[in-house]
Amino acid sequence: MQIPTWQDIERAAERIAPYAHRTPVLTCTQVDDRAGAKIFFKCENFQKVGAFKFRGACNAVFALSEEACRQGVVTHSSGNHAAALALAARIRGIPAYVVMPENAPVVKKQAVAAYGAMITFCESTQEARESTLLEVHKQTGAVVIHPYDHVDIIAGQGTAAKELLQEVPEISVILAPVGGGGLLSGTAIATHSISPQSRVIGCEPQVANDAFRSLHSGILQPSLAPKTIADGLRTSLSPRTFSILQQHVDSIVTVEEHDIIEAMHFVWQRMKIVIEPSSAVPVAALFQGKIRLEPDSKVGVVISGGNVDLQTLLWQQHSF
Amino acid sequence: MQIPTWQDIERAAERIAPYAHRTPVLTCTQVDDRAGAKIFFKCENFQKVGAFKFRGACNAVFALSEEACRQGVVTHSSGNHAAALALAARIRGIPAYVVMPENAPVVKKQAVAAYGAMITFCESTQEARESTLLEVHKQTGAVVIHPYDHVDIIAGQGTAAKELLQEVPEISVILAPVGGGGLLSGTAIATHSISPQSRVIGCEPQVANDAFRSLHSGILQPSLAPKTIADGLRTSLSPRTFSILQQHVDSIVTVEEHDIIEAMHFVWQRMKIVIEPSSAVPVAALFQGKIRLEPDSKVGVVISGGNVDLQTLLWQQHSF
Repeated sequence: MQIPTWQDIERAAERIAPYAHRTPVLTCTQVDDRAGAKIFFKCENFQKVGAFKFRGACNAVFALSEEACRQGVVTHSSGNHAAALALAARIRGIPAYVVMPENAPVVKKQAVAAYGAMITFCESTQEARESTLLEVHKQTGAVVIHPYDHVDIIAGQGTAAKELLQEVPEISVILAPVGGGGLLSGTAIATHSISPQSRVIGCEPQVANDAFRSLHSGILQPSLAPKTIADGLRTSLSPRTFSILQQHVDSIVTVEEHDIIEAMHFVWQRMKIVIEPSSAVPVAALFQGKIRLEPDSKVGVVISGGNVDLQTLLWQQHSF
Repeated sequence: MQIPTWQDIERAAERIAPYAHRTPVLTCTQVDDRAGAKIFFKCENFQKVGAFKFRGACNAVFALSEEACRQGVVTHSSGNHAAALALAARIRGIPAYVVMPENAPVVKKQAVAAYGAMITFCESTQEARESTLLEVHKQTGAVVIHPYDHVDIIAGQGTAAKELLQEVPEISVILAPVGGGGLLSGTAIATHSISPQSRVIGCEPQVANDAFRSLHSGILQPSLAPKTIADGLRTSLSPRTFSILQQHVDSIVTVEEHDIIEAMHFVWQRMKIVIEPSSAVPVAALFQGKIRLEPDSKVGVVISGGNVDLQTLLWQQHSF
């Protein structure tokens, strides 16, 4: 089982530089006051396709040889990876095929279609996604680019933390949400290469706590179709990401759905940025005191994306 | 009638530097594609209190002598100037009194109260605001800081365009919304000092087109309690701002309510930033082809603020 190295992340950074944004790092006094620390937000909601996923997808597509990618690429995704792969394939001029759960947000379905990918819908279980993916692969000959169980994807995702830590070297704790574990794996490898003494913490919805249970027990324990509002975090770790997290992650903390919505609302209202529920998970962990912090700690948070359906806002259905 | 000079704007920039944010300039390929030009957004939604108004209020409060400001400051405002003045007064350690229209957005009322100002509510007409203001001034002895008919306010607002043009000197057209004309006046004076050949264009809701009518007829023509969703633009020019705009502004363009909402939605969805309706007015003007542009023009847009009530989003009540 291949694990990406720091050199893979450096190569990824070079490979994606012509296509991906170097996203801004934002701070907010009101967030700092509430978190009791100085928080640096790496704003991947401003990334191409509105999510960090473009980094990995772009790296994976451009790492392929001309011959390997002639029949295109195929993946399954709740949305952001699909849009990212579709755009990366379009830039490279190859076809993209996407397997999506039927219950993915409308805005994500539209984005994937707008980037020109061919979509096959399936049930939202992990099993249905994997089997439909294999079917499309057999029919088309397209290269499977798994959303997170893939060396080039993980290396690409690690470039966000690389940029953040090179811009703010004093960061001593770095937080990222964990679904399949691609972002957290890349973040952990990058962080421990640049800043070996820093802590890397994964943040997860309580109702989708497969990473928490897996790391505590030492045995990979998938979540089956968990009902979290953080639609990007409904997937489970793979053996590869599990192994990376075992080696590089200090801890996994979990938060309640209610607190995710409240943190998301706070960030929209005070920071004036649109973030998706998955991105609010680390913010909720900070606000709920789930992270042990020294006074005046500098904390990095990877804001994973900003793709939400603006017609139905979560806080209009839930009170807090 | 005193008109601020470029030197006043330079002094304002120095005076507010310890307290105001130097806000980021953002770009977005999807906006550029739709506008047919390269657009640079000066993001005053990320400014303290969520709006450019902090620049003017901070400059006005810190320009006062110790003795002059002992009894505090008082103003009337639909919200952003009030919050800005309240924060500036708090930083300086003096009282702030605010006259607000009853129909101001809840989020703005809360912000003003949270910054510690004492609020007096009135009807939303210009007349009611002015008379209530005078009454509070008589009772308290506080210095009146008008939201836009004030040299130090206009000079402070001009610092946003100063920063934008110093960061992106190739900008040849600069757009700002126009309500009372403070932002547009400061923008125009700054722009014509730094870049005399550039065009400055004011953008206004069609249903609150007092600046358009005034500049076309040469006679100041107020709007009486106009019903625009752009709550920051319901005020009318003053003799001072009218005179500055006559001298420095190339044209005023107007946009429909429907197009303001659509532009606001587009910016939230594609750029992942929260902007208020007033800020969407120049964007709507670009999207509706109201601005004559050379191919490859570089256009600056001052995004005035990001204070909206997240419970009731405009596009949920209007379809487009």
